[in-house]
Amino acid sequence: MAPPSQLITVIAGVGPGTGASIARRFAQTYPVVLLARTPASYEDLVKEINGSGGKAVGISTDVSDGGSVGRAMERVRGEFGEGVGVAAAIFNASGSFVRKPFLEMTEEEFMTGFDVSGRGAFLFSRALLPGLLSAVPSSTSSTTLTPTLIFTGATASYKGSAHMSAFSTGKFALRSLSQSLAREFGPKGVHVAHANIDGVIDIERTKGWMKDAGPDAKIRPDAIAEAYWNLHMQHRSALTNEIDIRPYVEKW
Amino acid sequence: MAPPSQLITVIAGVGPGTGASIARRFAQTYPVVLLARTPASYEDLVKEINGSGGKAVGISTDVSDGGSVGRAMERVRGEFGEGVGVAAAIFNASGSFVRKPFLEMTEEEFMTGFDVSGRGAFLFSRALLPGLLSAVPSSTSSTTLTPTLIFTGATASYKGSAHMSAFSTGKFALRSLSQSLAREFGPKGVHVAHANIDGVIDIERTKGWMKDAGPDAKIRPDAIAEAYWNLHMQHRSALTNEIDIRPYVEKW
Amino acid sequence: MAPPSQLITVIAGVGPGTGASIARRFAQTYPVVLLARTPASYEDLVKEINGSGGKAVGISTDVSDGGSVGRAMERVRGEFGEGVGVAAAIFNASGSFVRKPFLEMTEEEFMTGFDVSGRGAFLFSRALLPGLLSAVPSSTSSTTLTPTLIFTGATASYKGSAHMSAFSTGKFALRSLSQSLAREFGPKGVHVAHANIDGVIDIERTKGWMKDAGPDAKIRPDAIAEAYWNLHMQHRSALTNEIDIRPYVEKW
Amino acid sequence: MAPPSQLITVIAGVGPGTGASIARRFAQTYPVVLLARTPASYEDLVKEINGSGGKAVGISTDVSDGGSVGRAMERVRGEFGEGVGVAAAIFNASGSFVRKPFLEMTEEEFMTGFDVSGRGAFLFSRALLPGLLSAVPSSTSSTTLTPTLIFTGATASYKGSAHMSAFSTGKFALRSLSQSLAREFGPKGVHVAHANIDGVIDIERTKGWMKDAGPDAKIRPDAIAEAYWNLHMQHRSALTNEIDIRPYVEKW
Repeated sequence: MAPPSQLITVIAGVGPGTGASIARRFAQTYPVVLLARTPASYEDLVKEINGSGGKAVGISTDVSDGGSVGRAMERVRGEFGEGVGVAAAIFNASGSFVRKPFLEMTEEEFMTGFDVSGRGAFLFSRALLPGLLSAVPSSTSSTTLTPTLIFTGATASYKGSAHMSAFSTGKFALRSLSQSLAREFGPKGVHVAHANIDGVIDIERTKGWMKDAGPDAKIRPDAIAEAYWNLHMQHRSALTNEIDIRPYVEKW
Repeated sequence: MAPPSQLITVIAGVGPGTGASIARRFAQTYPVVLLARTPASYEDLVKEINGSGGKAVGISTDVSDGGSVGRAMERVRGEFGEGVGVAAAIFNASGSFVRKPFLEMTEEEFMTGFDVSGRGAFLFSRALLPGLLSAVPSSTSSTTLTPTLIFTGATASYKGSAHMSAFSTGKFALRSLSQSLAREFGPKGVHVAHANIDGVIDIERTKGWMKDAGPDAKIRPDAIAEAYWNLHMQHRSALTNEIDIRPYVEKW
Repeated sequence: MAPPSQLITVIAGVGPGTGASIARRFAQTYPVVLLARTPASYEDLVKEINGSGGKAVGISTDVSDGGSVGRAMERVRGEFGEGVGVAAAIFNASGSFVRKPFLEMTEEEFMTGFDVSGRGAFLFSRALLPGLLSAVPSSTSSTTLTPTLIFTGATASYKGSAHMSAFSTGKFALRSLSQSLAREFGPKGVHVAHANIDGVIDIERTKGWMKDAGPDAKIRPDAIAEAYWNLHMQHRSALTNEIDIRPYVEKW
Repeated sequence: MAPPSQLITVIAGVGPGTGASIARRFAQTYPVVLLARTPASYEDLVKEINGSGGKAVGISTDVSDGGSVGRAMERVRGEFGEGVGVAAAIFNASGSFVRKPFLEMTEEEFMTGFDVSGRGAFLFSRALLPGLLSAVPSSTSSTTLTPTLIFTGATASYKGSAHMSAFSTGKFALRSLSQSLAREFGPKGVHVAHANIDGVIDIERTKGWMKDAGPDAKIRPDAIAEAYWNLHMQHRSALTNEIDIRPYVEKW
């Protein structure tokens, strides 16, 4: 198989925080495709990246809907060619966050977590893995790229708390998927990783939070992006499957 | 609230192995309700229990279908009265087991694991928890019953293996649910537990398996049932949330 | 090899709480040997058990001292014969509990945890495993005894907290030892288990603690003993390596 | 307190593999102090670093001996001044590796693991933490250095295998220490991390190993060094406590 003519990064879940920082970081090296439910989540970012020497394409996508994900992939191929390779695919979508007493939860509410973190992560991975595999350097290549699939997890990927079952069943499933895919696609040359983002992220919406916790008590989105980039840069002889990221003051 | 006039055990997932053994064990003390997709899974067992001094009712139920679970609960109330209490509820359903390369898996196949172990466990828990709560002894009672909700997990609840993502995303979610419910309903007096059944179970279907592994290399269903009964008997000052069960020869 | 003429239980770490309850429970079936640093810890209990139809022997032993453990084993063989088998060996010793800022800790203080939970557990296991192995029924025997080695762990076996490194390095080591021994001696017929006792135990010394937490907020020692007995009773096709035990109101 | 006049990196456990790579990597930025039992382990490396524009000092040290560690610290202060700060301290010592049936192990052999990974890690941490704390930037500083203490762990930090108790009790203890110190010194501005190096390292001694596993089946020491450097570079709002590193073909 011919090597891909071009390598891109695809990011699902682009809002004002982590997703935007990841997009900016990977856009320093690759054209980036930004998937989000609505244009409002990616429009400014696409402009910013395209306006500063990078290349970004935003596509309105519902990652929990197979048809929507399929159409997004068609757009990607239309934009970058059938043979485009994927250097990095980052699943940063999280969906809404239902927190309520278990007996007040409807089936629909319970499913919200899995619909994004389970079904959505499945659809995203299934759509992107062929492009990731095609970007694996051939054995005669001198390049050392390890195409990378990263899932953004949370404390809820490791611990089920009261009133949080909708969120944490999805996040546990996400972590499980990360392990299954790492064990299947690692030996094929794709790096699969799960990041436990354990803390409040420092964005506009959380501005008033944790005011008494001192400076840097909230995670800088740029620092997450740097960690993701470092995962992408790892040599295939030394890959990380699970990483935790938390502020120095965090209790855990 | 008046204490329940009667206490029952409800078991979802009754086949020839673990479910049947659990039913026989709990039927020594409580009337048992057996839920399975088809009568073939419970008919003989219902006869056996009713014929040997116990009381059993079988109800055809699809645990992943809210309507079906609702109708099953109506049947239970019709049989045992509106105010029936639930001493123990055991979620032993597992669904089919899709094991295939990730890129060959359809969305429907991927969802099979979560439909039973996620959605099904949610529907079962939501349906049974009111009856479990009503069986918690009042503070002036001299009884020490701790109503018990047990989920049957597997190695796949802890580890995502290659080709197993459909199964293990569901089982991870199940374990997560067990933790969320333990943390919410433990303080209300309900014991919630997850059992990691880590090995081949010794049933008709597995008769030819592991022939060279020596005697007792497969888990006796009765031994699982005894472990579940012991969980149910635990004093509320000393509850177990997670237990692993495996044969002495098992590698792990 | 001839089967042992007699089977005993040996318990290290017998004080007013868990150890005493375990001794009483196992003394219902086996003669019990009680190891503790000083006679004050076992004298009354030995009298109580011997006075109520059981058989108990107390031996002053420092489990972290190989010579002391050796002399205790000589006493055991003197009392019960060279060929005595060990049905159950329970390591319940914990040592003192140094909790202080890390930079104020001396090397001696740091070692206190490991001296008991590491070195002591090693010495105890090495001394008792031959007797446990000799109690494994031969393949032609109709008995189903699974000789059992149980270690009493704690939350600190799973989580290293600030100021607790002396205690938790020892407890982590204890859990590690439990896994190594389970994997080596399980296939030889010995059941090895680790119990995470996650809560305050209800003994004289903790009488005033947790007054506002309601009834049964502290773990009943008898309930731990019952759990240990149930571990001992497990069929070898269905052994538990790790169990957690905590009060229904415990946060975790 | 005045900021340190100079910042150094101290590495314990410098041999031909990981330790040397870490030394080279950190020597690009800091003077490095290399601790090893014998000069043979560090002499060539010291020459190499000093000869290529860096600064390295080798000190023969037995990390499991408090006196030896104390003398090493005196040498460090003699070389770099009383007020020297520690930007990074890396505990890469492992000690010998006793692998044998449990009942053939002597107390001395069992203690070898803990003597290095427990006692040694304690002595190293206690000796270096004051220098790490002194290197934490003051609140008015514009620098973002997060002084870093990294422990090299292994699979045996997470799993106790048969015949491996001497090694894994030490490694479990090491991981526990890493957590205790992260929770105590994280809020004071020191980054504490544990790396699970899960695979064979590609060094002279392992040249003939895993020949059929394909290229890059053994971990490149330089890749571990890069991961450690990235840990050191993390912003304090986004610190990693545990990282796993394994080859893409590794089973786990």
